[in-house]
Amino acid sequence: MIRRLTRVFPILEWGPRYNFDTARQDVIAGTIVLFITVPQVIAYAFLAGMPPEAGLYASLLAIGCYAMLGSSRSLAVGPAAIVAMMTLESVSRVAAPGTEEYVRVATQLALLTGLVLIFLRIVNFGAVVSFLSHAVVTGFISAAALLIISNQIPLLLGVSNPGSTDIVSLSAHVARQLPEISTPTLVISTVTIVGLLWCRFSLGKWLSRAGLSEVWVSNIVRSAPMYAVILGVVAVAGFSLDARYSVAVVGDLPNQLPSLHLVMFTWQEATDLLPSAVLIAMVVFMESMSVGTAVASKNREHLDANQELTGLGAANVGAALVGGFPVAGSFARTVVNFSSGARTQAAALVTAVLLIVSMLALTPLFYSLPRAVLSAIIVISAIQLIDISGIRKIFAFNNIDAITFGFTFVAVLAVGVEMGILVGILISFILLIRASSKPHIAVVGRWEDSGHFRNVLRYDVATSEKVLAVRVDESLYFVNTRYIENYLLNRVADAPQVEHVLLICSATNFIDSSGLEMLEHLQENLAEVGITLHLSEVKGPVMDQLKETSFYANMAGRVFFTTDIAMRELGGV
Amino acid sequence: MIRRLTRVFPILEWGPRYNFDTARQDVIAGTIVLFITVPQVIAYAFLAGMPPEAGLYASLLAIGCYAMLGSSRSLAVGPAAIVAMMTLESVSRVAAPGTEEYVRVATQLALLTGLVLIFLRIVNFGAVVSFLSHAVVTGFISAAALLIISNQIPLLLGVSNPGSTDIVSLSAHVARQLPEISTPTLVISTVTIVGLLWCRFSLGKWLSRAGLSEVWVSNIVRSAPMYAVILGVVAVAGFSLDARYSVAVVGDLPNQLPSLHLVMFTWQEATDLLPSAVLIAMVVFMESMSVGTAVASKNREHLDANQELTGLGAANVGAALVGGFPVAGSFARTVVNFSSGARTQAAALVTAVLLIVSMLALTPLFYSLPRAVLSAIIVISAIQLIDISGIRKIFAFNNIDAITFGFTFVAVLAVGVEMGILVGILISFILLIRASSKPHIAVVGRWEDSGHFRNVLRYDVATSEKVLAVRVDESLYFVNTRYIENYLLNRVADAPQVEHVLLICSATNFIDSSGLEMLEHLQENLAEVGITLHLSEVKGPVMDQLKETSFYANMAGRVFFTTDIAMRELGGV
Repeated sequence: MIRRLTRVFPILEWGPRYNFDTARQDVIAGTIVLFITVPQVIAYAFLAGMPPEAGLYASLLAIGCYAMLGSSRSLAVGPAAIVAMMTLESVSRVAAPGTEEYVRVATQLALLTGLVLIFLRIVNFGAVVSFLSHAVVTGFISAAALLIISNQIPLLLGVSNPGSTDIVSLSAHVARQLPEISTPTLVISTVTIVGLLWCRFSLGKWLSRAGLSEVWVSNIVRSAPMYAVILGVVAVAGFSLDARYSVAVVGDLPNQLPSLHLVMFTWQEATDLLPSAVLIAMVVFMESMSVGTAVASKNREHLDANQELTGLGAANVGAALVGGFPVAGSFARTVVNFSSGARTQAAALVTAVLLIVSMLALTPLFYSLPRAVLSAIIVISAIQLIDISGIRKIFAFNNIDAITFGFTFVAVLAVGVEMGILVGILISFILLIRASSKPHIAVVGRWEDSGHFRNVLRYDVATSEKVLAVRVDESLYFVNTRYIENYLLNRVADAPQVEHVLLICSATNFIDSSGLEMLEHLQENLAEVGITLHLSEVKGPVMDQLKETSFYANMAGRVFFTTDIAMRELGGV
Repeated sequence: MIRRLTRVFPILEWGPRYNFDTARQDVIAGTIVLFITVPQVIAYAFLAGMPPEAGLYASLLAIGCYAMLGSSRSLAVGPAAIVAMMTLESVSRVAAPGTEEYVRVATQLALLTGLVLIFLRIVNFGAVVSFLSHAVVTGFISAAALLIISNQIPLLLGVSNPGSTDIVSLSAHVARQLPEISTPTLVISTVTIVGLLWCRFSLGKWLSRAGLSEVWVSNIVRSAPMYAVILGVVAVAGFSLDARYSVAVVGDLPNQLPSLHLVMFTWQEATDLLPSAVLIAMVVFMESMSVGTAVASKNREHLDANQELTGLGAANVGAALVGGFPVAGSFARTVVNFSSGARTQAAALVTAVLLIVSMLALTPLFYSLPRAVLSAIIVISAIQLIDISGIRKIFAFNNIDAITFGFTFVAVLAVGVEMGILVGILISFILLIRASSKPHIAVVGRWEDSGHFRNVLRYDVATSEKVLAVRVDESLYFVNTRYIENYLLNRVADAPQVEHVLLICSATNFIDSSGLEMLEHLQENLAEVGITLHLSEVKGPVMDQLKETSFYANMAGRVFFTTDIAMRELGGV
């Protein structure tokens, strides 16, 4: 009973063993993470089209719910760039950003996303993220990053926002607004971007040379957004830039703790939002798992996919209940959390509590925070999402993946993140099936008197005229049965002296009923021309299945344990 | 040049070598096939909701076009049951059967189907039929046969037709009409069905005992529909059943040769019909290929999938130009054609010409042909489409296929053939991916001092504490990389004495960029705990690709040619 509870609530495992030393480390880590969390969650709230407090509230509840149910001890859950962009895309289809209706729909989306994640846990189908191949993920994240950056351009220039996520109408809008550019805003943007880039590429080396330890260097560098926030607030408040030059600022934050709200739905709203929620849930899970496993392997802890579904589901439901939007594991915050020594989810809870305290205490300061600084922070994070070396690898390694990447990338830019992901999934499966519908088939021979058999075209191997030994490098299933049967029949038609066909099943991982049907046909057709069909190296699970069939019972040929035995006994080599 | 022409027009290959002996055989075969063709093509025209002459005209042009371009010498192309049913389903969505508009849309559908087939040829993607697994095909054909049978019930009872293809509204309609049943029609139906069943199950044995040769017995039995037609005509004409008891008859046929019409489209019509045309094209190609290969293997001829796409495409375009509907290779007619000795497509042309001659000469006789006889013929053919032993095999052999079959079967009955096929394709892929996302992984050891390595759980094999030799029974690609990496890391976490992990790639047929990424991660993670990653038995095509990567260049471990060598050199067993 206790064990089962522990499995559902990992907090029961580490909670009781919690001690002063762990607590000290968690408080330190949690405080450090605060500096990166404050600017990020407010910025991502704006990116998602939400009011800034939605980011803070969502963080608090997401962290709290995940801490109880999630399996990673250092994953920092909350608003994240790609998911915020997807929220903007799907919610702005039904409501205008900045309206109450928009906030209402975004919370519905967060709740649905959470429910989808929990549903995936219940049906034990976390494997659904496997549908997102590396090429699709790289393609859609790179393109989404470009969309995110382009969405920040109006704010960086201080012109009005078109309220559209698509690149073409955005560019047209910006072009029309060029004369209206606000110089002070542009100065703030430029200084912030240059400053952040300097922190990123030079500050670290400078600090290292000054003798600081690596952990501190990394944490100081990663807190750069916080310096930008502080300098931005000082500049705006000091020179009244908002009043004098109408530089856009964050403005009033509600000076209160989040309150819980019921999230209501009509059936129609739920079904309309469901496709978006499913895709966002997949991305939430995929992103969080990849961040989580990266840290887990360094931490010698196991990440349990099912437990993650529950934890992330709860985090999204929690975010929904305080008027937040969909949340995921954040890469930047998780890395800082881990590297500054967080031992348990208590560190994240410390961050969450400090977040609320600072929000309540510092509301007047946030008022003067310029939007352009937040946009600059978003741009810098988005640039890091574009994985140039990963893209280069894809193009160097595999044509199919390169095509998949290209289609996904273009589709995301052309028709949005959601459709882009769907296009990517579809393309990757069509290409996969197309490839495995024409599997590699090798005629093999004995390699240097060994029991090992290799391709006659690649190695100097010994073969027999009487036995055609063929290795099909694929399972026998519906997409390739026609091709394989055709190949073998043509092959024996060209070799009249063949008496036995030996099908080496070392790469045949399963046989479906199309494959079985094909074997039956093949045996009949070969028998008509006096050839016997044999199998060798049939794997255990395949053999178990085959033994039940009438094909096996009525086989004229034999099933050999190894190709070596088969070739010797069939009078081969 | 000549060679290339021969490849496009197979008729150029057999045409010049045509001689009197071949001609004699073709004329005999063509005449015999006529007896089964006349009732079938008229019956299927009615099934497709078309006027009877559409079946005759479509046959003529389909046969003519296919004869020039198709690669099978005995495939009989023309109206076929399943494709007729799909035509009824898709065209009756936009027009009422029996109207001119309906005929117009059906010809558009035939043209589009032909163009889709030709397009598939051009992009060299006949492999698209591989998407239809044995389970999906069995499921949708069985369910479509039930739909076809249920559609004949009003005609068999002599009540009015509801003009709907779905089973529920059809049953409701028939139930309401029960008091109106026409006794003479019911008598004709019953006598015809009983007679056809008797011919099918008893006539053959009876004739064999009387000493007839097998070929003649088979042809006489298969011509049973023609006897039903003749008896039906005699009964109706002799007793004026149509005038006296208003038994439904075929009625007037136009006493003329088909004329060519242009088929016109609006863009909207084309896009609306395209999804149906794609599905029908897939079914046409799949059915024709399976009939064709069955005969081809007996005939020692090669069937060329690309050539078939062209031939069937041309046949459909031809059918469209004379006001016909989509056509495919007919199973029954092809078998009769082959077994009565057809040598070339000329036999089919003989059938086509005789078809038109008999139509022109015997128009008055066709007038009195009772619809109930045609419906009985359709019912008997449809019953033969339900492959009970095939269904039993699917359920006995493979759970995944059984689920796919079930979903497809139910979906076809519930929402129609088209949606049913789509549901089947979707389910089969989801289940396939689900299965290969958790591949079979075996830890292996040396089998009896041989160079052969098998699963430690199944065989008594020798293993080493230092080397973990693992065979992953699947390619390394995006759907399973997470699972495989997790499995291996957990496995070494439980075995602290392991120094080497040997990944045996005998079942790894390809590696995509997700797989490569996984190998890189895995190597890093293993290195952190002092374990080296090695590979063995990497297949040629996989090795070619791997050699280009930085993973291979920077590998700490080695790639061994055989597992045998690897285990000896790594200090294993």
